[in-house]
Amino acid sequence: MQSKLLDQINFPVELRRLQVNQLPQVAQELRDFIIDIVSQKGGHLGASLGVVELTIALHYVFNTPEDLLIWDVGHQAYGHKILTGRKDIFHKNREEGGISGFPKRNESEYDAFGVGHSSTSISAALGMAIASKLNGDFEKQHIAVIGDASLASGMAFEGLNHAGVTDANLLVVLNDNAIGIDPSVGALKDYLTAVKQGKNPKANNIIKSLNFDYSGPIDGHDLPKLISELERLKKVKGPKFLHVITTKGKGLQLAEEDQVKYHAPGKFEAKTGKIHPNNEDNLPPKFQDVFGHTLVELAEKNQKIIGITPAMPTGSSMKFMMDKFPDRAFDVGIAEQHAVTLAAGMATQGMTVFCNIYSTFLQRAYDQVIHDVALQDLPVVFCLDRAGFVGEDGATHHGVFDIAFLSCIPNLVLAAPINEIELRNLMFTAQLGLEHPIAIRYPRGRGEILEWKQPFQKIEVGKAIKLSDGSKVAILTTGTIGNNVAKALHSISNKDDYSHYHFPFVKPLDRGLLFNIAQNHKSIITIEDGVKIGGFGSLVSNFYSEEKVNILIHKIGVPDKFIEQATVQQQQEICEFDVNSLKKLFSSYNF
Amino acid sequence: MQSKLLDQINFPVELRRLQVNQLPQVAQELRDFIIDIVSQKGGHLGASLGVVELTIALHYVFNTPEDLLIWDVGHQAYGHKILTGRKDIFHKNREEGGISGFPKRNESEYDAFGVGHSSTSISAALGMAIASKLNGDFEKQHIAVIGDASLASGMAFEGLNHAGVTDANLLVVLNDNAIGIDPSVGALKDYLTAVKQGKNPKANNIIKSLNFDYSGPIDGHDLPKLISELERLKKVKGPKFLHVITTKGKGLQLAEEDQVKYHAPGKFEAKTGKIHPNNEDNLPPKFQDVFGHTLVELAEKNQKIIGITPAMPTGSSMKFMMDKFPDRAFDVGIAEQHAVTLAAGMATQGMTVFCNIYSTFLQRAYDQVIHDVALQDLPVVFCLDRAGFVGEDGATHHGVFDIAFLSCIPNLVLAAPINEIELRNLMFTAQLGLEHPIAIRYPRGRGEILEWKQPFQKIEVGKAIKLSDGSKVAILTTGTIGNNVAKALHSISNKDDYSHYHFPFVKPLDRGLLFNIAQNHKSIITIEDGVKIGGFGSLVSNFYSEEKVNILIHKIGVPDKFIEQATVQQQQEICEFDVNSLKKLFSSYNF
Repeated sequence: MQSKLLDQINFPVELRRLQVNQLPQVAQELRDFIIDIVSQKGGHLGASLGVVELTIALHYVFNTPEDLLIWDVGHQAYGHKILTGRKDIFHKNREEGGISGFPKRNESEYDAFGVGHSSTSISAALGMAIASKLNGDFEKQHIAVIGDASLASGMAFEGLNHAGVTDANLLVVLNDNAIGIDPSVGALKDYLTAVKQGKNPKANNIIKSLNFDYSGPIDGHDLPKLISELERLKKVKGPKFLHVITTKGKGLQLAEEDQVKYHAPGKFEAKTGKIHPNNEDNLPPKFQDVFGHTLVELAEKNQKIIGITPAMPTGSSMKFMMDKFPDRAFDVGIAEQHAVTLAAGMATQGMTVFCNIYSTFLQRAYDQVIHDVALQDLPVVFCLDRAGFVGEDGATHHGVFDIAFLSCIPNLVLAAPINEIELRNLMFTAQLGLEHPIAIRYPRGRGEILEWKQPFQKIEVGKAIKLSDGSKVAILTTGTIGNNVAKALHSISNKDDYSHYHFPFVKPLDRGLLFNIAQNHKSIITIEDGVKIGGFGSLVSNFYSEEKVNILIHKIGVPDKFIEQATVQQQQEICEFDVNSLKKLFSSYNF
Repeated sequence: MQSKLLDQINFPVELRRLQVNQLPQVAQELRDFIIDIVSQKGGHLGASLGVVELTIALHYVFNTPEDLLIWDVGHQAYGHKILTGRKDIFHKNREEGGISGFPKRNESEYDAFGVGHSSTSISAALGMAIASKLNGDFEKQHIAVIGDASLASGMAFEGLNHAGVTDANLLVVLNDNAIGIDPSVGALKDYLTAVKQGKNPKANNIIKSLNFDYSGPIDGHDLPKLISELERLKKVKGPKFLHVITTKGKGLQLAEEDQVKYHAPGKFEAKTGKIHPNNEDNLPPKFQDVFGHTLVELAEKNQKIIGITPAMPTGSSMKFMMDKFPDRAFDVGIAEQHAVTLAAGMATQGMTVFCNIYSTFLQRAYDQVIHDVALQDLPVVFCLDRAGFVGEDGATHHGVFDIAFLSCIPNLVLAAPINEIELRNLMFTAQLGLEHPIAIRYPRGRGEILEWKQPFQKIEVGKAIKLSDGSKVAILTTGTIGNNVAKALHSISNKDDYSHYHFPFVKPLDRGLLFNIAQNHKSIITIEDGVKIGGFGSLVSNFYSEEKVNILIHKIGVPDKFIEQATVQQQQEICEFDVNSLKKLFSSYNF
């Protein structure tokens, strides 16, 4: 692909040599470049297309990397990456050994702050602005670009609330496209919409009430306008706020029309935007869909069931429940803290709330799980999607800490099904009325069972299961990683050496079975797709230690480091719990 | 004390039999009752005095407990407790076997939601309101009473943002006294002040922008006005917001004049409010003061040091730094999430940030510690005050989970000093330039060393210390609980059986010493003032298990349940790590 202007631009300094009237062509070429690569490689498309002009304008006006530019979440930063030295490696976006899909400090000096989770940009930029002043640098500019969905999250409000009483040289750019991954929700969104439609006086708006110099809304695809406004704001002192209206997916018609699908569309035809048809007929379902369909099935019979998702109706498949029972399913926006305590409030009134939160995002509501749910022993059902490795999103998004941070909480039951059927049965069991909260963790992606829609069966809480019987070593697993073990055992010659036990419950552990296992085996291997410190293996090992049972335990899990972007398979290889590594281990184990 | 009207009121139903013109007398008697008991027993005074009229008005107008009333945080709920069946046990407020200092569901049906941490009330009340509607109960009222300091926290904003797009029957009462524990901060506070002073048009305020039916501000000590306004709002449909102005400490002159001191003044003279003089001359310092003074001392020499506290300048003694270096110390309000990421932003610019957060409140910023600090390996220094048991505040406020939830985070160093001198030296060492983040946990209350202000000494990260030498059992402790062990050992006859090792670092562990300990002892006892699951003992035990070192380990710590209000001494007795329990254990240990 030929790009007359983009070919000459490797860093912003080259961009800045151009005339303003040349920039629309750069925008066109940058957009084409993004579409070209993402159509072949996948990735986050829509957000980056929406900010092509804004990206160019920011790097044109501001003196990056001296000036510090922070992209909230970072889904929208592909243009930024391409213009800041990473054009030639952009085809290795989100790949092992390539570049991260998100801005990342140790990847480029242009990435002022690592992102991935939402609504951190204002706090981080404010911190930098305060530090610059203390460092005696009064020229440095600090810019946070944040979407309207992220602005509605509590943390962003905390940042605004603090910034408003400082004289920090901070510019918050609101990239208002009325959508996050799914359409934005909430009163702030309605308010911003009214502002855009001229139905609200600008002079007295929320942002101005928080003591920001507010300007806008302006058209985020109008380069000359963006540039002149940014030039003006560069000279304004103190905290300032620019409201920019953009269209997610801008420039690719299908992406503009179906913004949810084109958030991360997978591979597609670059010219038309047509998504390549996937033959998914004979594939097992995604776990998220098993959750979504099962919830509807249960909710049809149990009127007390309510669903809550913080901003992931599509990603969690909560949308099925929202479509079927709109009064009983809630997308509360990027507000995990609120989501959990809302669920707790509902539970006090006898509701059975399924609160679906990605494992990594539950970190945002840790206190609410302890203080509002577990301490009051309210029977909220947490469904933790994307537990374990998430693959291409990388270190920011893995759900590997959940067992460690949840297992120490009193009253909470912690479960990890091995397959789709067990997920269904755990959900079924939970809504029958456990008297405690429960967290059910399951992975991103597909299961392994085509005929997953089996009649419900109640599961006994705390009961583990023997999957295969052997003489020497007991392998203990929890969750879907057990399938790797089963496959590895299936293909080795000494499989009779191994018993394999699946623990659907990490807490409470099956104490009786654990005693039994120790009596009948020489040693134990625990395997999990979470951190080893404080994980399942640690709990097993501590059980034996407390009970003064002396048995060797070999623990396999995620080591004490952050695992970068790659495929899930590659991430499993790094931790040596992919099928092949396990095969090797099992066939040569030193008993 | 004679209370003509209050004596007849045990429950709100009796209050409702009175005429409105009798209520000011009830207010006077209730205020006297609170002052009388709190002056003798201690507790949270100022907040409850400020809402005496509001409490009476709410229970008078609304049909509690059918109508659901939630007090945010709960410091202000003493009047509520006294009017709802707990007058006769109020003298056992915050005592073991008595009542909790906070509303608590299993204590009374009038306590609709358990509280303690701030800003949960809107989410919980909204959840209840949505549930009531689904349950077909359209009469039930749902009221959240929240202070202005709590309203500024992100979670409250998330609740408002969601509520504003529902038709939930929700009343948010803003108890605006311009102070939390310390004076409120932030742009929202300035805005509310402007509203109060009539400098802002009510019609276009922030709350109204979020789609609430806003009314106020009204005088929160004017009972007839409160009652007529609440009566009116009871009939208004959908989310509504009443802005009430109160004076913290109302009715006790000294408490009104020094609202920070009288938040929880300890014992005082009921009539005058004069706080009983405490002879503190010959007591060791509070850990918080060691932190505060040491920070100033270090900041005088190291220009890069910055201090951050989320709303605890007095409680953490960050105020010393704020007084001395106002440009370099920040109270960001109840905004733990923002505090942590602000610190991360500053750290990227070369600052050494001491971010002081109570252990229990760090739960609010767990994701930010992982995602914004540890993943980027930024050398932020977390000082976690109130780690371990906090005594009278009870289950909501203990700092017992921190080792479990922090030790699984890569890159993070985790330390727990045994005394004031070691806290100082850890702070000194941290600001010399660790290349990783560090969390230093220390307890509420006083240390044990009078001459704590010793010259600084650098500490080797990861190094543990032998405190005493014995032949049979090695006792391993971390943090100040080691002093209990030293005292217990000191008074038993078989002290030579025990070695005692202090681990200032929970992570990284002193591996070399651990090998050595195992070689030279028959068994190990670990003792910590945190949860056993995932705690220090668990880490030690996992180290030996991983290294295939076979040694018996007896773990002592907080069991897997929530520990209620009592003195710290009593809470330690429950967990059997008070000095006496340890003495018994050590003198009769079965080797």
